[in-house]
Amino acid sequence: MKTLFVTDLKPGNEVVEFFVLRKKEIKEYDGQRFLKLELGDKTGRIDGVVWDNPEEIYGQAQVGEIVKVKGWVTTYRDASQVKVERLRRAGENEAQLSDFLPSSEKAPEVLLKEFKKVASSIREQYLRRLFDLLLADSQLIAMLKATPGGKLWHHAYVGGLLEHTLNVVQICEKAAEMYPIVNRDLLIAGALLHDLGKIKSYSAAGFFDYTDEGRLVGHIVSGEELVTGKIGEIPDFPSGLALQLKHLILSHQGQLEFASPVVPQTVEAIILYYADDMDAKANAFGHIIKTQRGKGRRWSDWVHLINRYIYLGEEEEKEEEN
Amino acid sequence: MKTLFVTDLKPGNEVVEFFVLRKKEIKEYDGQRFLKLELGDKTGRIDGVVWDNPEEIYGQAQVGEIVKVKGWVTTYRDASQVKVERLRRAGENEAQLSDFLPSSEKAPEVLLKEFKKVASSIREQYLRRLFDLLLADSQLIAMLKATPGGKLWHHAYVGGLLEHTLNVVQICEKAAEMYPIVNRDLLIAGALLHDLGKIKSYSAAGFFDYTDEGRLVGHIVSGEELVTGKIGEIPDFPSGLALQLKHLILSHQGQLEFASPVVPQTVEAIILYYADDMDAKANAFGHIIKTQRGKGRRWSDWVHLINRYIYLGEEEEKEEEN
Amino acid sequence: MKTLFVTDLKPGNEVVEFFVLRKKEIKEYDGQRFLKLELGDKTGRIDGVVWDNPEEIYGQAQVGEIVKVKGWVTTYRDASQVKVERLRRAGENEAQLSDFLPSSEKAPEVLLKEFKKVASSIREQYLRRLFDLLLADSQLIAMLKATPGGKLWHHAYVGGLLEHTLNVVQICEKAAEMYPIVNRDLLIAGALLHDLGKIKSYSAAGFFDYTDEGRLVGHIVSGEELVTGKIGEIPDFPSGLALQLKHLILSHQGQLEFASPVVPQTVEAIILYYADDMDAKANAFGHIIKTQRGKGRRWSDWVHLINRYIYLGEEEEKEEEN
Amino acid sequence: MKTLFVTDLKPGNEVVEFFVLRKKEIKEYDGQRFLKLELGDKTGRIDGVVWDNPEEIYGQAQVGEIVKVKGWVTTYRDASQVKVERLRRAGENEAQLSDFLPSSEKAPEVLLKEFKKVASSIREQYLRRLFDLLLADSQLIAMLKATPGGKLWHHAYVGGLLEHTLNVVQICEKAAEMYPIVNRDLLIAGALLHDLGKIKSYSAAGFFDYTDEGRLVGHIVSGEELVTGKIGEIPDFPSGLALQLKHLILSHQGQLEFASPVVPQTVEAIILYYADDMDAKANAFGHIIKTQRGKGRRWSDWVHLINRYIYLGEEEEKEEEN
Amino acid sequence: MKTLFVTDLKPGNEVVEFFVLRKKEIKEYDGQRFLKLELGDKTGRIDGVVWDNPEEIYGQAQVGEIVKVKGWVTTYRDASQVKVERLRRAGENEAQLSDFLPSSEKAPEVLLKEFKKVASSIREQYLRRLFDLLLADSQLIAMLKATPGGKLWHHAYVGGLLEHTLNVVQICEKAAEMYPIVNRDLLIAGALLHDLGKIKSYSAAGFFDYTDEGRLVGHIVSGEELVTGKIGEIPDFPSGLALQLKHLILSHQGQLEFASPVVPQTVEAIILYYADDMDAKANAFGHIIKTQRGKGRRWSDWVHLINRYIYLGEEEEKEEEN
Amino acid sequence: MKTLFVTDLKPGNEVVEFFVLRKKEIKEYDGQRFLKLELGDKTGRIDGVVWDNPEEIYGQAQVGEIVKVKGWVTTYRDASQVKVERLRRAGENEAQLSDFLPSSEKAPEVLLKEFKKVASSIREQYLRRLFDLLLADSQLIAMLKATPGGKLWHHAYVGGLLEHTLNVVQICEKAAEMYPIVNRDLLIAGALLHDLGKIKSYSAAGFFDYTDEGRLVGHIVSGEELVTGKIGEIPDFPSGLALQLKHLILSHQGQLEFASPVVPQTVEAIILYYADDMDAKANAFGHIIKTQRGKGRRWSDWVHLINRYIYLGEEEEKEEEN
Repeated sequence: MKTLFVTDLKPGNEVVEFFVLRKKEIKEYDGQRFLKLELGDKTGRIDGVVWDNPEEIYGQAQVGEIVKVKGWVTTYRDASQVKVERLRRAGENEAQLSDFLPSSEKAPEVLLKEFKKVASSIREQYLRRLFDLLLADSQLIAMLKATPGGKLWHHAYVGGLLEHTLNVVQICEKAAEMYPIVNRDLLIAGALLHDLGKIKSYSAAGFFDYTDEGRLVGHIVSGEELVTGKIGEIPDFPSGLALQLKHLILSHQGQLEFASPVVPQTVEAIILYYADDMDAKANAFGHIIKTQRGKGRRWSDWVHLINRYIYLGEEEEKEEEN
Repeated sequence: MKTLFVTDLKPGNEVVEFFVLRKKEIKEYDGQRFLKLELGDKTGRIDGVVWDNPEEIYGQAQVGEIVKVKGWVTTYRDASQVKVERLRRAGENEAQLSDFLPSSEKAPEVLLKEFKKVASSIREQYLRRLFDLLLADSQLIAMLKATPGGKLWHHAYVGGLLEHTLNVVQICEKAAEMYPIVNRDLLIAGALLHDLGKIKSYSAAGFFDYTDEGRLVGHIVSGEELVTGKIGEIPDFPSGLALQLKHLILSHQGQLEFASPVVPQTVEAIILYYADDMDAKANAFGHIIKTQRGKGRRWSDWVHLINRYIYLGEEEEKEEEN
Repeated sequence: MKTLFVTDLKPGNEVVEFFVLRKKEIKEYDGQRFLKLELGDKTGRIDGVVWDNPEEIYGQAQVGEIVKVKGWVTTYRDASQVKVERLRRAGENEAQLSDFLPSSEKAPEVLLKEFKKVASSIREQYLRRLFDLLLADSQLIAMLKATPGGKLWHHAYVGGLLEHTLNVVQICEKAAEMYPIVNRDLLIAGALLHDLGKIKSYSAAGFFDYTDEGRLVGHIVSGEELVTGKIGEIPDFPSGLALQLKHLILSHQGQLEFASPVVPQTVEAIILYYADDMDAKANAFGHIIKTQRGKGRRWSDWVHLINRYIYLGEEEEKEEEN
Repeated sequence: MKTLFVTDLKPGNEVVEFFVLRKKEIKEYDGQRFLKLELGDKTGRIDGVVWDNPEEIYGQAQVGEIVKVKGWVTTYRDASQVKVERLRRAGENEAQLSDFLPSSEKAPEVLLKEFKKVASSIREQYLRRLFDLLLADSQLIAMLKATPGGKLWHHAYVGGLLEHTLNVVQICEKAAEMYPIVNRDLLIAGALLHDLGKIKSYSAAGFFDYTDEGRLVGHIVSGEELVTGKIGEIPDFPSGLALQLKHLILSHQGQLEFASPVVPQTVEAIILYYADDMDAKANAFGHIIKTQRGKGRRWSDWVHLINRYIYLGEEEEKEEEN
Repeated sequence: MKTLFVTDLKPGNEVVEFFVLRKKEIKEYDGQRFLKLELGDKTGRIDGVVWDNPEEIYGQAQVGEIVKVKGWVTTYRDASQVKVERLRRAGENEAQLSDFLPSSEKAPEVLLKEFKKVASSIREQYLRRLFDLLLADSQLIAMLKATPGGKLWHHAYVGGLLEHTLNVVQICEKAAEMYPIVNRDLLIAGALLHDLGKIKSYSAAGFFDYTDEGRLVGHIVSGEELVTGKIGEIPDFPSGLALQLKHLILSHQGQLEFASPVVPQTVEAIILYYADDMDAKANAFGHIIKTQRGKGRRWSDWVHLINRYIYLGEEEEKEEEN
Repeated sequence: MKTLFVTDLKPGNEVVEFFVLRKKEIKEYDGQRFLKLELGDKTGRIDGVVWDNPEEIYGQAQVGEIVKVKGWVTTYRDASQVKVERLRRAGENEAQLSDFLPSSEKAPEVLLKEFKKVASSIREQYLRRLFDLLLADSQLIAMLKATPGGKLWHHAYVGGLLEHTLNVVQICEKAAEMYPIVNRDLLIAGALLHDLGKIKSYSAAGFFDYTDEGRLVGHIVSGEELVTGKIGEIPDFPSGLALQLKHLILSHQGQLEFASPVVPQTVEAIILYYADDMDAKANAFGHIIKTQRGKGRRWSDWVHLINRYIYLGEEEEKEEEN
């Protein structure tokens, strides 16, 4: 178990601790070759530098692996960095993944239980069987618990996919109450499965990154493929129901330019799109507000992804007035 | 009270009934001048034609007024039309507006009661006073009950604005429960007021049309203006709160190209945008599905506004199979 | 076998012939109900009208079925129409589908042979096995031969999918020669399979139309699903190769807004995109030029799909000068 | 009165002078906390650094206030910076705002006189009364004189709003002469008021920044609100005239994606849009050309806002040839 | 000289008059072939029909030629048409082009004089020589007088190109006064020449249409070519000046998507773009307002080209109130 | 002849060698003025710094000229730089341009021979005469050999324009075989000439840069101008053929927003567009893959111009597994 985290490192500290190796590169300075590293854990990231035997240490571990580092903290151009003396790959049970990846507030196990509960509320028999099959696939379930909701922008933590999924379910449940025309079981099944493909799109070995499948196929089609495979195992699954469920997964980004290969054409699909996007944005706005608020600021830094500043509220200012 | 509606008219029928005058135009055929009309009521529209004294009858009434028509139903090129013999403007109490405009399922009075109930759940004192002022404005309330949610695409009926508003409130209420960072009272106030400007944008004299203000100013700014006016009557209304409430109204279309002059910059604003758009689209999809479903069709006509066909479901086909 | 085709029908002709039923609708004129039909064959379409027993004849056949019609040709508003006296569904072997759908110049069987020859030129063993499996699937092959390349715009005829596919292969073969960095077998496999999903997207029962799967899933994902299914039957199919092949299918429309869920990220994918689009456009331009050229015209009608007029060349003008 | 300006500071200089405090932040270097500042005046900006008692000095002044600084100029990484020994907030009359903000060439007072002269040329009686009211509002007039035309891109100096406004008036005056269909008084009134809302959008306390209202409401709606308020004080102001004037303000950015909530729908509005944009761009191009021309350059740096280089002309080169 | 114009034709009139032949097509009705024509003059267009010897009459004249027609006016489906008995091509001097094409209010000769006067105000010697050459080219000048400013949308009449050009010059003259950085002679030369290529883009033989060059090359490049050709005849024309003048022509549509191959990169070019667009839009708005105003209408028909209704003003309504 | 290239420079080396001067700027550090340079050759670029007599050395040479430099290599902030002691403009024959600009693999002379061979395969007599004229223009031919295909993104080396042109020809030759409707000679002529204007758009004096003409006119119109000029020298060149050839050059970027002033309207033009774009992208993808592949990377750096990562393939990984 880790005791020293990135956010705790102060210039002058000695360091003997596990980190995930995020990057490694041999560079040269004044004719001398050295190894530049990026180390991380669930609290953040820090640069590292190795001056002695850089090639040898370069070969000790791959990017994404957890390594044990010995060294001390210095500063270089306003920023802290770790001067690394020794580094080796961590043994199998020396370190816990949960120290390296940020995690949702609720435990993934708890979130999974809620997921199962929602699934069990579905009465349509074929959709029920589909969830029975999916929930019996222990490898899939393990990945489901570990996968984030996104890489950077929203729910970027272990359990994030489940947390996001359950939020989308809640909004859809409300919509199913409000609009009698909606096929509730179909909509809820779509909500539960809409981002399932993300278990194939992100690797979570030490830190979150895209897999080749995440880039070459994309989470939308990966998810549709997973569901199509399971449906293929259920005899007599109605073809119209299968098409509508696939449509919910494929169209959930709402527009072609957001990478959905088809636009929403059913009332359930149009609702799922808004529910998904609302939760993603609300989580992202909330994250920015929580992490940037305070210290007299009323506005966030510029948020490139959505081309705007976000208003942080005026609480802090009131305090200052007192 | 009307007894004969547009949908009931059959070729050969005699007609002595009230209609709203939707269009009038003098035309010429084979050297003879005649008057072409469009008549309507809450069930639809039908053409009319006047061969005798067209100029005189042209002067009897303005577009948008209710008229009493005497004539009989003929057909012309596959379509029914009314051959009009006599026509005069309706007297003040001869006809009821409710016969001419489609109306929400729930009575506007009932919807208004729900609106008031939601308003009374707001605890923030300045927002409460704002609603007290608004609800005390009987002219505004009368218009609020009569205004549709849109002209063609969604909630296009008397009471539609209230119905849409209450749906948006429901989704926002759910979001306020889900996201602790949300200022619930602010969000609900925004939801209640977001489309208020529509009372200035639509005229409902006989049939729905845009007003000059609806086109030259737009419902977003009209609504903001209304709220700004009332806020001006409340001493010490906090300026930050006022800005955030105005922002909710101004940004609720979500993007500049959808006519919002500012994009959502607060967490409440981003949620209101999705709630508003989800309800509009769900209502529009539902309306298309309900009116086009049946008769073996599984797909709607092409929907220009959103560039797609809508899937109507497969119920009817099953029936046919039986 | 048909002897009388739509293009041959002249006012006054008696008609006893097979047609495909493209539309049917009960309408009313001057108080009398009648049945309006659209009939077609591979040469075009014509309206039909039934005045006696319209409801009974309505129930005789479904849209898309082939029917035998007895009647005679009249004109109605400048256009010919068939006044139908009797109509019944065709018996199983009374009519040949090839009379009703337009077809490629080369026989589908010949095109299929070329397809197989290209497939057999692939040396990479796993891709070869994949094509062995696909070509052994007789139902899939039957559909492959029957499917058009598009519904309206390009290669809209039986055999069109094969014809388009082989053209794309030719351009890719050239590119593989020109650019040594290209993996030729991978690119050719992608070219052969890129539009395979169209066999699920179009129904060809009497005339071409979209299937529900064509609309709700789309030919890109349908094709990827088909290929993924076959790959699943091949032990040890290399995962990297599978991803790259799927990527070729998924990205072949080149841009998200053209319904590809991922953009081309490999050199083979970027080439396939241009080859596919070049052949589609060259076929479409060619079709417009061939069918509209002549009679002194140098410009086509306005082509909505690409927002322009197409230049038809100046042959006719030269003739006029003589 | 300042005697030492940012552009005059040379390494080695002693500094005892007033500056506006643009930014302040506590940072840490090699375990030692220090205060990093950004200081400015109308000629530019320079960094400052405080090593002794950073927390205490941090508390001396707020961002946007004018401060008196004692220290000397050093260099750090190619750039000059001020090593600050002492810093305190300026007393009420110690410094003049005009030393800290850039200003138009013509004095704001002169520009205001021209503004009044144009206003007095309006003959339509209600518009005249509107300008009488506005010009009688001394607070509004004070802000009008102080406000820039934009934050960065055009007329970014005290008096800039007036200067830009008068230029737009000139172009509109020309258009009113050229096009007899134009209502000259309406157009000129719109030109005078189109950017009035900017007095609410920018704060000019030491340096230009957006206010919360500038971001949450935007200058277009702020301006419309101001004008609506004044119109409300004029009995019998014709509603059609009011709508058209509001429309001029609301539509003056010309397109929805440029933040106008309505597009120009009157001939006056379409002219105002072009006049406004022409002057903004001509001023921006002119500013870039004037500041970057010379030293053998014929092209500006890349201008991100408009994605192009600007041609600076060839004067300088000719000189070099001599 | 014509005495009977399209707008004067009433059912029952006998017709012996010249018209321009706009379209001709052989059609068939109830087994009988007939010739359908479109005839026009400067006041509008009307259909014609020939039942006797349609093929022979078809061969009498080409589209765009002026023909003498004998027949009488009938009505067909609500619209008037000319039943044509005889038709022949007009002899060389039988008809005047000015009867068939709409024309500017000011005579083209007067407009040309103004054009020359502006040209003579240019002092830069090479630009002056360029205009001397252009004005000495009598064929070019003849076309310049005859060419419209646009085909449908703005200045669509003989002399329209000159009228539009002189308006653009006026706005540019104003801008040159306002912005000292502007090279006045260069800007005015660009304004005079910006649309010169339209003389190659429109044919005005009887009615306005695009030429092949208008479609395949476009007026922007045609104009640049014309100017480049003339510059080539002037020894020592400074290359930098030539580039800047070409740039004014090439960039005057302001954006790539409006068919300019380069965006404005000089201050003169950015001004010319706004001046050109302002005059085109002001003319188009004005034309719509003048032709649609009155009869109680306050709004134009939907204007497809700019996706909006145009406000026609409220004059007429006031009159009605009286 | 150079013996020491930028890629060979190591800290500590003495340098007495020719480089192209890419940038020069006087700067100040700690009160001392110095001259900052950028030096380059065909292998890359390196910074240089001059501390003694910076003004004097600044005046020795212009940007784009070849200079002889004496100094030694040091490092500054992780990067190498040349501390320059002496610098002078190179004499006329001291250095070879080929040492400073990257070059195509095949010699430009060889590429030109292929270009001539293709030109001689054209049988249409007027197009043949056009190429005879072009190939007889020795200055044009010299520039054709020296010009790159692009500045940064594709074929950015001497001979690149010819190499790209010949690739486009190959694809068009294939298309002419495949589509009988294509006018082969016209298409090949268009392919050979489509980018000819680039000889006016790039300067290749020491390093590639845009000329003023490249920016103010653009390579599309420059090329059309060149061809129009030569056509003007050929008596009786058919005007329709000339228009179609110009159209090929003008429309070859395929869309207005890619700077073509007209969109492709002939079948040859649509093919040329795809052939041009396919070769540009295949070359660019290939260049990125070749230069970034290896060292265990499977993905390129982010490619801004096309907003994606490029897949580099998996070769390296396989090696690592061994």
